[in-house]
Amino acid sequence: MSDVATLCARARAASHALANVPRASKDAALLAVAAGLRARSAEILAANAEDLARARERGTSGALLDRLRLDEPRVRQIAGAVEQVAALADPVGGVLDDHTRADGLRVRRVRVPLGVIAMIYEARPNVTVDASALCLKAGNAVVLRGGSEAARSNAALAAVVADELARASLPRDAVQVVPAGSHDTVRELVQQSSTVDLVIPRGGEALIQFVREHARVPVIAHARGVCHLYVDAGADLGMAIGLAKNGKLQRPGVCNALECLLVDVADAERLLPPLAKALMDGGCELRGCDRTRALVPGARAAGDDDWGREFLDRVLAVRVVDGIDGALAHVARYGSGHTEAICTRDAVRAERWRTEIDAACVTVNASTRFHDGGELGLGAEIGIATSKLHWRGAMGLEALTTFQWRLDGDGQIRG
Amino acid sequence: MSDVATLCARARAASHALANVPRASKDAALLAVAAGLRARSAEILAANAEDLARARERGTSGALLDRLRLDEPRVRQIAGAVEQVAALADPVGGVLDDHTRADGLRVRRVRVPLGVIAMIYEARPNVTVDASALCLKAGNAVVLRGGSEAARSNAALAAVVADELARASLPRDAVQVVPAGSHDTVRELVQQSSTVDLVIPRGGEALIQFVREHARVPVIAHARGVCHLYVDAGADLGMAIGLAKNGKLQRPGVCNALECLLVDVADAERLLPPLAKALMDGGCELRGCDRTRALVPGARAAGDDDWGREFLDRVLAVRVVDGIDGALAHVARYGSGHTEAICTRDAVRAERWRTEIDAACVTVNASTRFHDGGELGLGAEIGIATSKLHWRGAMGLEALTTFQWRLDGDGQIRG
Repeated sequence: MSDVATLCARARAASHALANVPRASKDAALLAVAAGLRARSAEILAANAEDLARARERGTSGALLDRLRLDEPRVRQIAGAVEQVAALADPVGGVLDDHTRADGLRVRRVRVPLGVIAMIYEARPNVTVDASALCLKAGNAVVLRGGSEAARSNAALAAVVADELARASLPRDAVQVVPAGSHDTVRELVQQSSTVDLVIPRGGEALIQFVREHARVPVIAHARGVCHLYVDAGADLGMAIGLAKNGKLQRPGVCNALECLLVDVADAERLLPPLAKALMDGGCELRGCDRTRALVPGARAAGDDDWGREFLDRVLAVRVVDGIDGALAHVARYGSGHTEAICTRDAVRAERWRTEIDAACVTVNASTRFHDGGELGLGAEIGIATSKLHWRGAMGLEALTTFQWRLDGDGQIRG
Repeated sequence: MSDVATLCARARAASHALANVPRASKDAALLAVAAGLRARSAEILAANAEDLARARERGTSGALLDRLRLDEPRVRQIAGAVEQVAALADPVGGVLDDHTRADGLRVRRVRVPLGVIAMIYEARPNVTVDASALCLKAGNAVVLRGGSEAARSNAALAAVVADELARASLPRDAVQVVPAGSHDTVRELVQQSSTVDLVIPRGGEALIQFVREHARVPVIAHARGVCHLYVDAGADLGMAIGLAKNGKLQRPGVCNALECLLVDVADAERLLPPLAKALMDGGCELRGCDRTRALVPGARAAGDDDWGREFLDRVLAVRVVDGIDGALAHVARYGSGHTEAICTRDAVRAERWRTEIDAACVTVNASTRFHDGGELGLGAEIGIATSKLHWRGAMGLEALTTFQWRLDGDGQIRG
């Protein structure tokens, strides 16, 4: 067996032991992990310093370096997030259906862990701990494959998790780290269909594409967020400005940030100039269609590739559209199935937006930034699914489970 | 665009129109389909007669011919099944979660159609109509790719469905038929990731394997059922005989039939001889381990490949195991994740069976034959999923939907 296959087989074995661990034991182990992270922060930061030094040698840029960097407050944050997961309800054992047939046969559907979840991610080392905590809480073993730039940090963090699991008498093998370095280990990992139940890739498009191409295991991708805000004729201008600024400027680098503003031509003269001014005053570059530029001289001309583009920066595409039909058509063509917002006072058009948009999340008069596990009441999230199968949108603990039919009788046979 | 890509794109366009059709319109169309099937049965049977003639020419065997054959009563049965689907509740629009945050933002999760479902199946023409009815009721378009041996029958049946949809002012394109004949069209179909949301293959292992190998679209396989019955020490003998006979003999050719009987060594002397006699009296061939054959001289010796084998016939593998641990280990190694039964009087071992078996369905003192959409209260089923993602076990209408987050506010932004 290859190294990757061996790691996955160990995780599979551990998953059986973990599946029926009671909530109290899992929570105690998670609290111990949090304490362990705080106690061993020097060791973690030393490993992280090595990663940072190597990254600097390779000429890594500021933003990527920042995502890679850990310090005392960040380690405490990571530990705090584990404690929050411990405080969440245990999804395992939840009863989804329970009925008794006329012949006395009881039919239940009960939530159970998925088994083994493989997490493939890039720079940010906190994912190592966040993903482990969520998978373990839902009774799953996890196989981690982080980026090579964070290899030492990830190994140090995973070692704390595994050590604390073992001290809490849970299987150490429930957390496995696949060596980073080559794409070969990713390819091999996503083909372990006999031992891995789900692969969750988080990262750039190249990674997601590679995983999709080679996977023989089911994949839930945390893929691009190309989120739109459509400002309808008659919309409240102050509300529209608030939603646009919050969507684009609060945190431009995340997947639920706005990438494109659509404005109804019927009301663009009133709405667009002050919207544009508010955004540009906030340091945002606008790339507009011709009709936009006629109203907003400060906007650059949008290129064809600016529609459907994930800028992840203080840049926003702006298009004047022909009413809600134009907006729906634009989103159908360029949206990524993540989060789509309308700002409107019209109930009919609000309902068309809710029911005609094919995306994980639609918002009416609310910021796209709310599409987040914490904000939606999930407590935490392991990613945001832009595919439709199994789970859609922000993925909390439930998304890491499946269910089992359980039939109880006293000898019933089928007639 | 290739022919297959064109069909799928048409289905995708139709799926948008179908997604928000109210229940009454969908049900009216389904009732019209049922009436159309009855009215045009001569046309359907003529097409079927051609398929049968070709199959006979190719020397097709009795069982396969029988699965292919339609007659008046079977057409009426197919029509009746469509009426049953019309009578089921509409899953679309069901609210899974609904809460309002302190800031007034309302957060809902609402059931919506998946979009386009591709169904790949073999001989039985009734699947053409059954799958179409279930997909349409759940608001989905369907792309059908049946076996070449039933090509004329499938085309005739699908034409009735499409004609009645069009007469009911629903999109005719919601039902597409991919020409059978070569595996190339299957390969192409399962790679239409921009237009197809889910592929459901039903058929032999070669088909399932081919689909899994080539798919770029999510797959829920209706795969092998290798179901076990473990008879525990102290079990009620009469109950055990009832469960074994019902599981193996009532309908040996289906996926929820028994393929292997496990008996606790501690009580095998009492249990096994009468169990074996009842099965053999029912015309069943037994293939046993050495310990079985010591107690049941009439059993043949089981070969290594008889464990984990789907006989789909009046043949049963029989093994004496060392208590429930032996039974659990056997099932973990040889089970296919479909349905696993225990016959026991012991509550602790019953609970171990429920919680330690990793299968879509576990039964305690009940026949494996109950794992069926109709029996479990789903009304109908499109297949039985032996994978874990999205849905597990008998798949009814809910399994053909996903959900969408819908956020409603009055200008809320994220702090």
